[in-house]
Amino acid sequence: MERAALLHRPDSEYAYLFEKDVMHIRLRTKRSDVKEVKIIKGDPYLINEDKWYKESEKMTLVATTEDYDYYQIAVDAEFRRIQYAFDIVGTDGEEVFYGDRGIFDLSESVIEKAENYFRMPFFQEVDRFKAPEWVKETVWYQIFPERFANGDTSNDPEGTLPWGSQLPGREDFFGGDLQGVIDHLDYLVDLGINGLYFCPIFKASSNHKYDTIDYFDIDPDFGDKETFKKLVEEAHKRGIKIMLDAVFNHTGYYAPQFQDVVKNGENSQYADWFHIHSFPVEIGTNGNFEGAKTLSYDTFAFTPMMPKLNTANKEVQDYLLDIATYWVREFNIDAWRLDVANEVDHHFWKKFYEATTALDKDFYILGEIWHSSQSWLQGDEFHGVMNYAFTETVTNFFVKDAISATKMASGLYEQLMLYRDQTNQVMFNCLDSHDTARLLHISGENKDIAKMALTFTFLQQGSPCIYYGTEIGMTGDNDPDCRRCMVWEEENQDQIFLAFTKQLVALRKDYQPILSYGDLTFETLDNEGQYVEFTRQTTEGQVKGFFNKGAKEQTVSGDLEVLMSQNVEKTASGYVIRENGFIVSK
Amino acid sequence: MERAALLHRPDSEYAYLFEKDVMHIRLRTKRSDVKEVKIIKGDPYLINEDKWYKESEKMTLVATTEDYDYYQIAVDAEFRRIQYAFDIVGTDGEEVFYGDRGIFDLSESVIEKAENYFRMPFFQEVDRFKAPEWVKETVWYQIFPERFANGDTSNDPEGTLPWGSQLPGREDFFGGDLQGVIDHLDYLVDLGINGLYFCPIFKASSNHKYDTIDYFDIDPDFGDKETFKKLVEEAHKRGIKIMLDAVFNHTGYYAPQFQDVVKNGENSQYADWFHIHSFPVEIGTNGNFEGAKTLSYDTFAFTPMMPKLNTANKEVQDYLLDIATYWVREFNIDAWRLDVANEVDHHFWKKFYEATTALDKDFYILGEIWHSSQSWLQGDEFHGVMNYAFTETVTNFFVKDAISATKMASGLYEQLMLYRDQTNQVMFNCLDSHDTARLLHISGENKDIAKMALTFTFLQQGSPCIYYGTEIGMTGDNDPDCRRCMVWEEENQDQIFLAFTKQLVALRKDYQPILSYGDLTFETLDNEGQYVEFTRQTTEGQVKGFFNKGAKEQTVSGDLEVLMSQNVEKTASGYVIRENGFIVSK
Repeated sequence: MERAALLHRPDSEYAYLFEKDVMHIRLRTKRSDVKEVKIIKGDPYLINEDKWYKESEKMTLVATTEDYDYYQIAVDAEFRRIQYAFDIVGTDGEEVFYGDRGIFDLSESVIEKAENYFRMPFFQEVDRFKAPEWVKETVWYQIFPERFANGDTSNDPEGTLPWGSQLPGREDFFGGDLQGVIDHLDYLVDLGINGLYFCPIFKASSNHKYDTIDYFDIDPDFGDKETFKKLVEEAHKRGIKIMLDAVFNHTGYYAPQFQDVVKNGENSQYADWFHIHSFPVEIGTNGNFEGAKTLSYDTFAFTPMMPKLNTANKEVQDYLLDIATYWVREFNIDAWRLDVANEVDHHFWKKFYEATTALDKDFYILGEIWHSSQSWLQGDEFHGVMNYAFTETVTNFFVKDAISATKMASGLYEQLMLYRDQTNQVMFNCLDSHDTARLLHISGENKDIAKMALTFTFLQQGSPCIYYGTEIGMTGDNDPDCRRCMVWEEENQDQIFLAFTKQLVALRKDYQPILSYGDLTFETLDNEGQYVEFTRQTTEGQVKGFFNKGAKEQTVSGDLEVLMSQNVEKTASGYVIRENGFIVSK
Repeated sequence: MERAALLHRPDSEYAYLFEKDVMHIRLRTKRSDVKEVKIIKGDPYLINEDKWYKESEKMTLVATTEDYDYYQIAVDAEFRRIQYAFDIVGTDGEEVFYGDRGIFDLSESVIEKAENYFRMPFFQEVDRFKAPEWVKETVWYQIFPERFANGDTSNDPEGTLPWGSQLPGREDFFGGDLQGVIDHLDYLVDLGINGLYFCPIFKASSNHKYDTIDYFDIDPDFGDKETFKKLVEEAHKRGIKIMLDAVFNHTGYYAPQFQDVVKNGENSQYADWFHIHSFPVEIGTNGNFEGAKTLSYDTFAFTPMMPKLNTANKEVQDYLLDIATYWVREFNIDAWRLDVANEVDHHFWKKFYEATTALDKDFYILGEIWHSSQSWLQGDEFHGVMNYAFTETVTNFFVKDAISATKMASGLYEQLMLYRDQTNQVMFNCLDSHDTARLLHISGENKDIAKMALTFTFLQQGSPCIYYGTEIGMTGDNDPDCRRCMVWEEENQDQIFLAFTKQLVALRKDYQPILSYGDLTFETLDNEGQYVEFTRQTTEGQVKGFFNKGAKEQTVSGDLEVLMSQNVEKTASGYVIRENGFIVSK
C-alpha cells in the first residue's frame, strides 16, 4: 500500500458536520491501492472504559479520480463528540492504522492509545456549514442589465444605439434597464427559472457598471430605487429570487472617496481607504506591468480605473457593510454575488457573512473565485463560488474535445471532494457568462453540443445558471461580443432551443431532490468512444444519464423511462445514441 | 515518482504570509522520492504579458519524516499577489507540474494555462497569523496555586493540612495562595523564568478550581483582587508575564447560573446557557457511559460537576467575553490559557480573539488541545496550543525508550509541518503539568534523564515551560501526586538540579534569536545507539546539540565551544558522551 498517499485532515471538508447530528468523514488514498477502509470510532472519554474501538464500520468508495480514491462515511455519536481513525487494508494485504499521530502497522497497542485518534471534539451546530435550502432548488438566469431589455427609453443615456442595431463595442450603450426586466418577468416564469443574477446595477460610468461611483444608488441609466423595489416585489411574487453583484474589491476611479484622495492627497479623510503608495496619486499608464510601475496605488489587476479598497480599514468595512445590509434590509434581495472575492480579506468576509445572515438566515453568498476555494467555504464566509473549475471540466469534454471521459469524471470528482457535500449542493454552475465567450460560440455554433453540455450540467450537483439569451440560441465571442442585445422578436429566436431549455429547467425541478442531493456514480467511462453513463441517486430514486460525445454509435439495451433525449433512435432491443446524443432517464 | 503522495493546500499552513511581504510555501512529497522541487510563480495578471513563469526557483528540503519529505521556500511579490505551481523531478527522472487543477506531465501548454496555478490572491496583512513577539522569548513556569506557597495563613480554608505534611489526596487543602507567589517572585527571577502560568484562581469549590463558581472573583482561599493586582504589578516590575486559566467549556455545578437551572428548570433565565436535554435537571450517576445516560445535561467528559456551557448562546458569549476582557482591562494580564479549548466552538473563539487582542495587540492566547489543531491556529483564534504531541515525542525517546531516534525526529518534524513557522515559535512546550505524572517520576527518578529531556526541549522551537518544583527535583505520579506542596527548605531542595535549571534558562535567553527562530536540522540519527546530533541555525549563528540516550559511548571529534554538558568526558581528540549524556555547543 502507498502509505504516503493516505490523506485526511480533521475539522475540514474531510471531517465535518453535515446535519446537526450527522458527521461526514472522508479519506483519500492512492487510486486502486486499497481493498477496504473501515473507521474505528467512539467517545473520546470512553477509551479506557470499554472496547468501543472494536465497533469499526466500513466506509464507501464515493469518488475515483485519475490519481486517487475517496472513501466516505456518515456517522453520529450519542454524546455528540467522537474520536476516529482509519483501518486500511491495501490491495497487497497490508493493514495499517491511520490517525492523528500518523500511520502505524495495525496493532492492539496502537488502537488502544487515545492520542492516536483524530477528533471531532464536539458537534458544534453553530460552526456547521449551513447552506440556504432554496439555492439547491434554484435555476439561475444571469442578466447583463444594459443588454437584456429596454423598458424605459426616458432613461437612455446620450448616444444610446438602437436596440440590437449592431454588435456591441466596448463602450456602447443600448438602453437596457430594470423596467425591461420587469416587462419580461413572465417570459422568465414561462422559461421556468427561479433566480435572477444581475451584473452590477449601482451608479457607475461604464456600461458594465463594475466601476462603482455610488453603491447606494441605482444607476440612472437603469432606473431608480422605486423601479428596483418593484422589480424585487414582482419577482418575489413569481417565486423568483434576486441576486445582486457586489463589487467590494475596488471602487471606480470616479467614486467620490477616491476623487477626494486624488484632490487632497494625504490630507484626504479617505487617504487610508485605498492602498496608496505615494502622494499625489498618479494614474500612471494603463494595463501592464511597466504601466503599473508608474501607478501610485493598488488596483484591480493593472486597471487604473479600479482603485483597490483597503478593507482592513474599519471605516471602509463599516461603509461596505452598510451597503451590504442596506439592499437586504430595504429591498429584500436574497443573495449577493461578490466580485473578485478572493482578493478581499477573509477578515472582512466573515463580518459580511455575519451581517447579512443576521438579517436573513437564508441569505445566499456567492464568491467569484476561479481557483480552489476551501478557505472561503468553511461555513462563515461564502456558501458557494462561481464554479469555473466545473465549467472548464465540462466544456473541455463536451465542447472542446480536449479531455477524455475518465479525465472529465476525474475533474468533477476532484472538485466535489474539495468541499463539503452541503457546499457542493449550492455551488453556482455556469457554462458561460459576461466574462467568457458564449456556450454556442465555443461549441462552434453546433446547437446539439451546446444542448448536451447544458443538459449534463443540469444533471449535476450545484445550481445551474443560464446566461441570458442562451435559451433562444444566442451566440458571441469573448467580451464585448458575449454582451449582445437580447433578441425579443420571436421569429429571430430559436424556438426549438427555447422549448428544449424549458424542458430542461422543468426536468431539473421535477427531479429536484435527486438532482440536488443524489450521489454521482459513473457506470461507464469509455475513452475511446468518449461516452459516459452515470447515475444520480438518493434513497428516493434515481436519474440516469447516457451521453455520447464521440462519433461511434453507442447502444443501450432494454427499456428506459426516457425523460429527455437527443440524437437517439429507438430500436427493437433498446436505443442507439449517435454522436452528440444523449438520454436522460429515470 | 509517487504522484498520489504530492500534497499542497493553498491558503493554509502550506501557503501563508509569514511577514507582511513574505510568503512561505510548502510542499509534501513521499520520502526520498524526489530529486528536486522548483516553484514556478508570477503575477496572476501577467500570465499573458510575458514569460514570468520561466523564473522558477529551487525549494529547500526542510523536514524529513518516516513517510514524507517537506520542501519550503520564502517568496515575495512586487504587487503582493502571486500564482504558483510546482515543477517536481522524481528520483526516477519523471518531471511533473503540480498546481490547482492537479498533476500533469510538465509541458509548455500546461505551464501557460492560468487556471493550472495555485493562488495567493493578495497578501492580506489583516489575515496574517501574528504571534506576540514576547512569547518567543519566554520561559514559562507553571504554578498550581494551592501547592506553591502559603503566604497568608488567614485565608486558609477549614481543615487545611500543614504544608507538605503528607502526600496530597484528591480533596486536600494545604493553604497555597497568591501572597505565597508574591513572596517568592524573587526566587523566580533568580531562576530566570519570565512567564507565569497559573492554574485557575477564580472562586470555585475544589482545590484545583476548575469547577468555577464566580469568574469575576478571586477564590477567597487564594486571596482577593487587591492581592492579585499586586501580584501582577510586582511580576511585571520584574519582567514576568502573567497567564491565567480560563475554564469556558463548562462551569462548576455550584455556579449560580447552573444552580438557578437546577432550581427553576425550564423557567430559569439560564435554561439555555447549558445543554439541557430534559427538565428537571438530573445529576445522574458519575463518571461513565451508563452513568451519563441518567444525566439530563451535557458535561465535560462524564463529570456531572462540570455542566457544559452553551457558547452558541449570545448571552453566554457576552458573559464570557466580559470575563475575558475584565481581567485584561482591570488587571493587565498578558495571556489566557483556555481549558478544554477544543470542545468550545470556533465561532466563540473568534470573538474571544477579537475582544482580547483589541485591548492588547500583544495578548497571547493558548488553547488546551491535545490533538492536531490546524483549524484553531489560522490566525484568528489561538496563537498556540499546549504541545502534547511534542511532549509525547520527546518523552517517548528520552524518557520511555519507546521510539527510535528517527521516529523522534519524524514526530517533531511532523508537528512543525502542521503549522505555520510563526505558530511553531509560540507553541507551549511542557514535559509535565498538573494533568500528568511529573518528569522525574516518569524518568524513573533518574535525574540525568530528566535533565536531558529538559535540555532538549529548551533547544527546540516553542516556549518551554517548567512545572513548579521540577527545578528542585520534585517528583510525583499522576494527579493528585503531581500536585505536592512545593519544597522551600533549601536543604530539601536539589541544589544541583536548581543550578542546572538556572543555567538552562539562561542559555535559552542568551541564544534567543537562534533558539526561537532557527531552522532545525538533524545531522545524525543513530537508531542503534539512540544518539542524535542536530543544529538550530539562523543567519546570526547556530546552536548544536549532541544527545546520547543509549548505553553505547559516542565520540565527537574536534573542539567545541561547549555551553552545557552532562556525562561527557574531554579527550585528546574531542569528547566522549556516555549514556544519558549531552553537549550543547555553539
